[in-house]
Amino acid sequence: MREHHLRPSPISATVDFEADGIQHGFLRLPYSRDDSAWGSVMIPISVVKNGKGPTALLTGGNHGDEYEGPIALFDLARKLDAADVEGRVIIVPAMNYPAFQAQTRTSPIDRGNMNRSFPGKPDGTVTQKIADYFQRVLLPLADIVLDFHSGGKTLDFLPFCAAHVLPDKAQEERAFEFVRAFGAPYSMKMLEIDTVGMYDTAAEEMGKIFVTTELGGGGSATARTASIAKRGVVNVLKHAGILEGEVETASTRWLDMPSDDCFAFAEDEGLVEFLVDLGEAVARDAVIARVYPIGRTGVEPVEVRARMNGLLVARHNPGLIKPGDCCAVLAVEV
Amino acid sequence: MREHHLRPSPISATVDFEADGIQHGFLRLPYSRDDSAWGSVMIPISVVKNGKGPTALLTGGNHGDEYEGPIALFDLARKLDAADVEGRVIIVPAMNYPAFQAQTRTSPIDRGNMNRSFPGKPDGTVTQKIADYFQRVLLPLADIVLDFHSGGKTLDFLPFCAAHVLPDKAQEERAFEFVRAFGAPYSMKMLEIDTVGMYDTAAEEMGKIFVTTELGGGGSATARTASIAKRGVVNVLKHAGILEGEVETASTRWLDMPSDDCFAFAEDEGLVEFLVDLGEAVARDAVIARVYPIGRTGVEPVEVRARMNGLLVARHNPGLIKPGDCCAVLAVEV
Amino acid sequence: MREHHLRPSPISATVDFEADGIQHGFLRLPYSRDDSAWGSVMIPISVVKNGKGPTALLTGGNHGDEYEGPIALFDLARKLDAADVEGRVIIVPAMNYPAFQAQTRTSPIDRGNMNRSFPGKPDGTVTQKIADYFQRVLLPLADIVLDFHSGGKTLDFLPFCAAHVLPDKAQEERAFEFVRAFGAPYSMKMLEIDTVGMYDTAAEEMGKIFVTTELGGGGSATARTASIAKRGVVNVLKHAGILEGEVETASTRWLDMPSDDCFAFAEDEGLVEFLVDLGEAVARDAVIARVYPIGRTGVEPVEVRARMNGLLVARHNPGLIKPGDCCAVLAVEV
Amino acid sequence: MREHHLRPSPISATVDFEADGIQHGFLRLPYSRDDSAWGSVMIPISVVKNGKGPTALLTGGNHGDEYEGPIALFDLARKLDAADVEGRVIIVPAMNYPAFQAQTRTSPIDRGNMNRSFPGKPDGTVTQKIADYFQRVLLPLADIVLDFHSGGKTLDFLPFCAAHVLPDKAQEERAFEFVRAFGAPYSMKMLEIDTVGMYDTAAEEMGKIFVTTELGGGGSATARTASIAKRGVVNVLKHAGILEGEVETASTRWLDMPSDDCFAFAEDEGLVEFLVDLGEAVARDAVIARVYPIGRTGVEPVEVRARMNGLLVARHNPGLIKPGDCCAVLAVEV
Amino acid sequence: MREHHLRPSPISATVDFEADGIQHGFLRLPYSRDDSAWGSVMIPISVVKNGKGPTALLTGGNHGDEYEGPIALFDLARKLDAADVEGRVIIVPAMNYPAFQAQTRTSPIDRGNMNRSFPGKPDGTVTQKIADYFQRVLLPLADIVLDFHSGGKTLDFLPFCAAHVLPDKAQEERAFEFVRAFGAPYSMKMLEIDTVGMYDTAAEEMGKIFVTTELGGGGSATARTASIAKRGVVNVLKHAGILEGEVETASTRWLDMPSDDCFAFAEDEGLVEFLVDLGEAVARDAVIARVYPIGRTGVEPVEVRARMNGLLVARHNPGLIKPGDCCAVLAVEV
Amino acid sequence: MREHHLRPSPISATVDFEADGIQHGFLRLPYSRDDSAWGSVMIPISVVKNGKGPTALLTGGNHGDEYEGPIALFDLARKLDAADVEGRVIIVPAMNYPAFQAQTRTSPIDRGNMNRSFPGKPDGTVTQKIADYFQRVLLPLADIVLDFHSGGKTLDFLPFCAAHVLPDKAQEERAFEFVRAFGAPYSMKMLEIDTVGMYDTAAEEMGKIFVTTELGGGGSATARTASIAKRGVVNVLKHAGILEGEVETASTRWLDMPSDDCFAFAEDEGLVEFLVDLGEAVARDAVIARVYPIGRTGVEPVEVRARMNGLLVARHNPGLIKPGDCCAVLAVEV
Repeated sequence: MREHHLRPSPISATVDFEADGIQHGFLRLPYSRDDSAWGSVMIPISVVKNGKGPTALLTGGNHGDEYEGPIALFDLARKLDAADVEGRVIIVPAMNYPAFQAQTRTSPIDRGNMNRSFPGKPDGTVTQKIADYFQRVLLPLADIVLDFHSGGKTLDFLPFCAAHVLPDKAQEERAFEFVRAFGAPYSMKMLEIDTVGMYDTAAEEMGKIFVTTELGGGGSATARTASIAKRGVVNVLKHAGILEGEVETASTRWLDMPSDDCFAFAEDEGLVEFLVDLGEAVARDAVIARVYPIGRTGVEPVEVRARMNGLLVARHNPGLIKPGDCCAVLAVEV
Repeated sequence: MREHHLRPSPISATVDFEADGIQHGFLRLPYSRDDSAWGSVMIPISVVKNGKGPTALLTGGNHGDEYEGPIALFDLARKLDAADVEGRVIIVPAMNYPAFQAQTRTSPIDRGNMNRSFPGKPDGTVTQKIADYFQRVLLPLADIVLDFHSGGKTLDFLPFCAAHVLPDKAQEERAFEFVRAFGAPYSMKMLEIDTVGMYDTAAEEMGKIFVTTELGGGGSATARTASIAKRGVVNVLKHAGILEGEVETASTRWLDMPSDDCFAFAEDEGLVEFLVDLGEAVARDAVIARVYPIGRTGVEPVEVRARMNGLLVARHNPGLIKPGDCCAVLAVEV
Repeated sequence: MREHHLRPSPISATVDFEADGIQHGFLRLPYSRDDSAWGSVMIPISVVKNGKGPTALLTGGNHGDEYEGPIALFDLARKLDAADVEGRVIIVPAMNYPAFQAQTRTSPIDRGNMNRSFPGKPDGTVTQKIADYFQRVLLPLADIVLDFHSGGKTLDFLPFCAAHVLPDKAQEERAFEFVRAFGAPYSMKMLEIDTVGMYDTAAEEMGKIFVTTELGGGGSATARTASIAKRGVVNVLKHAGILEGEVETASTRWLDMPSDDCFAFAEDEGLVEFLVDLGEAVARDAVIARVYPIGRTGVEPVEVRARMNGLLVARHNPGLIKPGDCCAVLAVEV
Repeated sequence: MREHHLRPSPISATVDFEADGIQHGFLRLPYSRDDSAWGSVMIPISVVKNGKGPTALLTGGNHGDEYEGPIALFDLARKLDAADVEGRVIIVPAMNYPAFQAQTRTSPIDRGNMNRSFPGKPDGTVTQKIADYFQRVLLPLADIVLDFHSGGKTLDFLPFCAAHVLPDKAQEERAFEFVRAFGAPYSMKMLEIDTVGMYDTAAEEMGKIFVTTELGGGGSATARTASIAKRGVVNVLKHAGILEGEVETASTRWLDMPSDDCFAFAEDEGLVEFLVDLGEAVARDAVIARVYPIGRTGVEPVEVRARMNGLLVARHNPGLIKPGDCCAVLAVEV
Repeated sequence: MREHHLRPSPISATVDFEADGIQHGFLRLPYSRDDSAWGSVMIPISVVKNGKGPTALLTGGNHGDEYEGPIALFDLARKLDAADVEGRVIIVPAMNYPAFQAQTRTSPIDRGNMNRSFPGKPDGTVTQKIADYFQRVLLPLADIVLDFHSGGKTLDFLPFCAAHVLPDKAQEERAFEFVRAFGAPYSMKMLEIDTVGMYDTAAEEMGKIFVTTELGGGGSATARTASIAKRGVVNVLKHAGILEGEVETASTRWLDMPSDDCFAFAEDEGLVEFLVDLGEAVARDAVIARVYPIGRTGVEPVEVRARMNGLLVARHNPGLIKPGDCCAVLAVEV
Repeated sequence: MREHHLRPSPISATVDFEADGIQHGFLRLPYSRDDSAWGSVMIPISVVKNGKGPTALLTGGNHGDEYEGPIALFDLARKLDAADVEGRVIIVPAMNYPAFQAQTRTSPIDRGNMNRSFPGKPDGTVTQKIADYFQRVLLPLADIVLDFHSGGKTLDFLPFCAAHVLPDKAQEERAFEFVRAFGAPYSMKMLEIDTVGMYDTAAEEMGKIFVTTELGGGGSATARTASIAKRGVVNVLKHAGILEGEVETASTRWLDMPSDDCFAFAEDEGLVEFLVDLGEAVARDAVIARVYPIGRTGVEPVEVRARMNGLLVARHNPGLIKPGDCCAVLAVEV
């Protein structure tokens, strides 16, 4: 197996994954640089373990500008009582911690997009080293993986929990049961076209249950979206049998993204005016947004139109848009 | 008078403010710099004039990352028909055009905050030169000034239109009639403590009617907030008698910010979790937000509490907060 | 073959290379980044096709600060009539489009030098992904490749068209016929020492006819050098039989760069004063340029001397020079 | 007098302006900064004095990316023999030395444009402190001032020497005699509209003879333009009687810029194609340049047209142009 | 008085300077910027007051990269017991807090050098606003001012405490008594040539006792230098009668800087090799340091020589040196 | 062997390693970039050869902010007389020359840490290309390698010379004889845990004698530490028999770093106060340093404690510390 040929991870954990009780510590990754010759990246981690039972690996900050996950996980880490747990909960509120500190999608150190860096490299960039540690150390410990995402600074989403359509239908079915348990207002069945480098794929290829979310965006979190995340993670732990008690049920609307026609891209630069808001229905060929050239007044805007009927589930967030930016995403209710 | 001692503005307009009809042009400000020795800042402007009547000066992009105003004004500039106008409409969708291009609050050239740069200086920085042109050329032409604001990237607001409490009560009363005509969901009576350098003050000291807004934020605009701006500006022109027709009435809730207790500031750095959303009521001493230190898990967050009863009308938008940042603003309904 | 082991290119074209008529579209390369999570690089492309006939692939902006090629190709793309074509013309005026936008030699995204990035990688940097698309998609479609270069901001050249000395003498001969047809004031026979990573080599190794130019420099283009490029590209299409009509002949002077003695490098930092201009003859050991240390007056400059007799065909353009910069290039007329 | 109210200049010279002989030294300006708490800006200066006679103040690098002046002056400083001088020659090859080091028009320290910083301030920015030293120390020592300019990185000029139309016609006449003596291929009669902050004005208001040049541009110098500068400065010293011998005469063409119609500005962003080169004649309404939008192929370029008949005496140099950039300057021969 | 014409300071303190007991709070300075529209600079401050008695104002971080003062003052602020105090102690460990956070001499916001920014401006830059608050609010409250300095990143000093030679000899004498009480290994009598903008001067002109230090440097602090600072500040409070107990005496060597010949400046760029260390004696004309050009091996270094006999009391710290940098400072023992 | 599959190094030397006498020249590495299309990195090198005898390869500037080595080697290169040499001395005072110029640990071009870049790559980044040249060209020429290090800007060390514990005990013993000959105040026996990418390892794996140092730090050098380096390098050449004469003996204290407990890392951000200085003894569990949070006064600092008894041999230099920074290193005397 390929792992056998790799040098060991340079990351060391200050927590013991096999010890019962609650531990708060760090994943320490040596990182020599101009402002600290013998410095390190210190990624906060909590491990809560009690007896036998499944392991849930809970992650946020895969992209550094998405906040519902980190809020739910910093909150959970300080509240969880080892006595209430049956099994193990591993919490990493900010996987790409340098990006999270910098409030950016990618790492300020190497511009690494964590979710395109798997399986990582032990002798690669900082982001690749973190990915490698998850690939070879943390994922193998897990039974269930919940990875929180939101839209970040440049996208905004209807809040949904999601899992992937998978070749192994039993694995897929179990994942969707977790999506249902999570209890977001919307739930999404996702078919990834390009799975190269994703954390999702890394977990699924090991046979793990992998559940993810998109819970808002715009580089912020509201009380409402944070509470969806907080309730969802507890529901997942209950559904897994790690926490006792009933899943707190909530109604959800199931969505599907049937084809590439879901996506509407901008071909022009300018000031974007949306004509529909998230959650509203759009008919095929309707104008979703106008793009005004900003260099002159009195010029007609370019129109971005829907290529299918659907609900607006995601949109470009910044006030200006550039050619090639994804302007809008539609989905159909199922 | 002070103006007599100043050198003329270096800005020249490519439009004629006295000509009937519609003109789209530029305010051209020479700006010699490393990448263009004989370059200029070109600020788009439209002038629509027909016969006699009052002059409305309509501005957006006073801060470069606020979008409802520019959307409404680029849209109005392409649609307005001179034949429908009685008087004059001067439209500058992006006052601080360099900031607007850069999607930043302040100018990338001199970090100038336009709304703290009045009365400006003809031999100052680029931002001060623009302010001086408004001070000495455009404001004197105007009867009514409507200046659009939103929260920008770092604040988010309940959508409201506003005017100031003024020493001249007749002037104040006329301004509030325009606020009512604008028809935003909320209307605000503002008492500025520190008016130094504001465009608002510059206009009001000349006896002009000055109306402003805060219509959302987060560095974005929704279909809903853009439509509030678009309807509002037409209502203002109708109320002024520049456009014909009835003001499109809408119910509004009147708000007041009675004291400094409205503001809650952060004293700590961290990940911010709001417990209330915009428009929700908060009781005095209630926790509005928690601030989690991000360097470790398992640590208790710091709480930010309300110093009075009120509605949450504005909040810090980014996911992380720094000491000294305004975390929340409350207002009371009147 | 190696290509079979590679994942498909992430780039998709919005044009159909097999359709008759004229199409203007984009090569769209998804590029997730901090300011656009679901953004793309959009490289403009035109395809003009009519019936059967050879395919010419015409490229500029391989380096982003070279302008004769982009001028000739943006001009050609708007003027070419599909009815006049017999075969196919693929026009990419700015191969390294991010560099072209930034007016820099290399890409601002990854500092990639396009002409040292071949054969590229589908999972590499943005520049490597573009190179890979040319390597595996566009080059295989072509019979003749014309790639425009100039000196860019930091070099200035006598205007010449060139091809390489090749192992396949028939291929070489056909290429030089195209150089002759191009009709630049000078024509160059080039022997590359280090061909690693070049677009030229990639094309030539597939057996394509590859013709290139150096048409000026200094980060600018004159009316004269732009017209050489515009006439040259039409001549090439005529010589290929894709456009009808006679090649517009022009006299050319043939040059050769016989050895490494062509190059004169600076070993010192300072203000450079050239004593000869482009196109002038220099004798061996003559002083080509002086380099003045700038920290003091009254100091003798260092001299850069010719290592052979020749014409000055290229020179360092910026006013200051650094150790290791190529100061001057000589060639001999043949 | 205003000077009496100012604190003394913080600049000290390591040369003695009253001593006979040749001295090479520095103007030392203390500049405390992060990378040198007790650092200084060191501006090279030479003083060559012999007996009685007029003083010529020779300056280059007023803008840091213009090279003919510095070449001529570094060269002159090492060659001038005090025994050949009758009077005094003060040479400052790079007035804005920090800009000259950085190869930028303005100072990297404060973005100061030296030629808009007069009369300067002893307690202002670094650029203002240098201007103040020239205003209060060096200019008063001078009888004749020769200040070299060229187009810099972003403009390119026909080579000319120039003086200003002045209220004092005797002063003006003497200046034009020096222009004639300089002997550039072209000579220009300049009427400045906006003289605020210029070194030229500072000198002229003190009654000094002020002569200036524009000798090329594009951030470079050719052997030809450098030799114009080198011959010109010697001619000026001869005409002043400071050096012995005959002025080396050369024919010159006299130019005039009669009105604002000389200037053609771009209103659009794009790739610029010039249709005429420097020194060529243009008829009113003729197209001087085309500006191609670079975001798409197949789009018509915008045209920049001449507003009068004239010769092209200056043009925008970089390959891309931005709204507000000066695209072209025309002049008429007189 | 000039203060009457100025607008009030925008800074508000969260501590009450008149309340008995110990308070830890902030000086809050509103600072609107791109990443926080309603942000503030928060400068930590402690006030310890008990009954009647003199007021000591204790400051560090006037320059942001000097550490002995902040260490002594953060330490003192947590240890001081109000019951032990007779009078008042105001502690600001980091006057230029933005610079202190950034580990730079000057402010990253406006590059302001705090010690050249007095008397400040209430409507100026951030650094000027802080200076103005000290000028108009804190200095008037104080009887004794102790302002800690060290060499910062770019200088290194023998540890000394110092006061200025003053026109008011009684004031001077009292200041030197405090210097003696401080008890540093060295004590310095300073004659400032250029006092413009200094905090020192601002305090002295109000008739306050002003004592300062230079306690090491190199952007660091040792256990030894920190303990000098910690002992010194307690000694000063004891000498002032604010704390009870005997001053902890220590022997000190008195130094004097008699003229400008104390300073040796570099005129060349290169790698600096010191031949003497801090505290060692140097004879006039002896070589203090060599400066090696780094671009070539085999070249002779330039020598920097002493202009008088003395002890080396300060030196340039970084390994490379630039023209105009202060290389060395000598003093004489008295 | 792997080298056979690699393309040749792009670096060419302007010196002849086989020629007798002294040569000063460059390693020239072509480096095409935005500010010099045909530029190069020029690394100064000296070769001093005379007859037969061993080859010593002497290097400094492996990290760009460490100065004792470059001082000793620039000094040696100008003083060494070929007639005094028996064998060959190759001197490269600044291996990572771009980092040395920039005064940074890593290269400003690619952020490459030279000592983690071996064996390098001929087609990699600039730093990797330099490493490859040492790996394949210079190291094979050498018998003894002396590579100078110091702490750089962010660490400070007790001055020691060191070699590694090696599997080949004869090689190890010979190396320690050179350490003894070097004659630093301290000598260290080092056991590297992670040797991946080190120059040390590259040399040792070829069977070369490899000796290194840590001679101070803080981004500076003192007269004392520079003289240790200068004496040490001559001693090494004498011990090797390349120079004649007796090694200048000096007493040294031998140190050992027995385990990971030597290292104390910070987990918190703040102002660091050391309680012990370099060379002082610390008992297990004693407080080495305190870390004060800087955001507030009145807060208790965090303590960093010793995990074993030892001498403080290295410490964090900057005044502020970050989580993950190495705060202190202890060693035991043997």
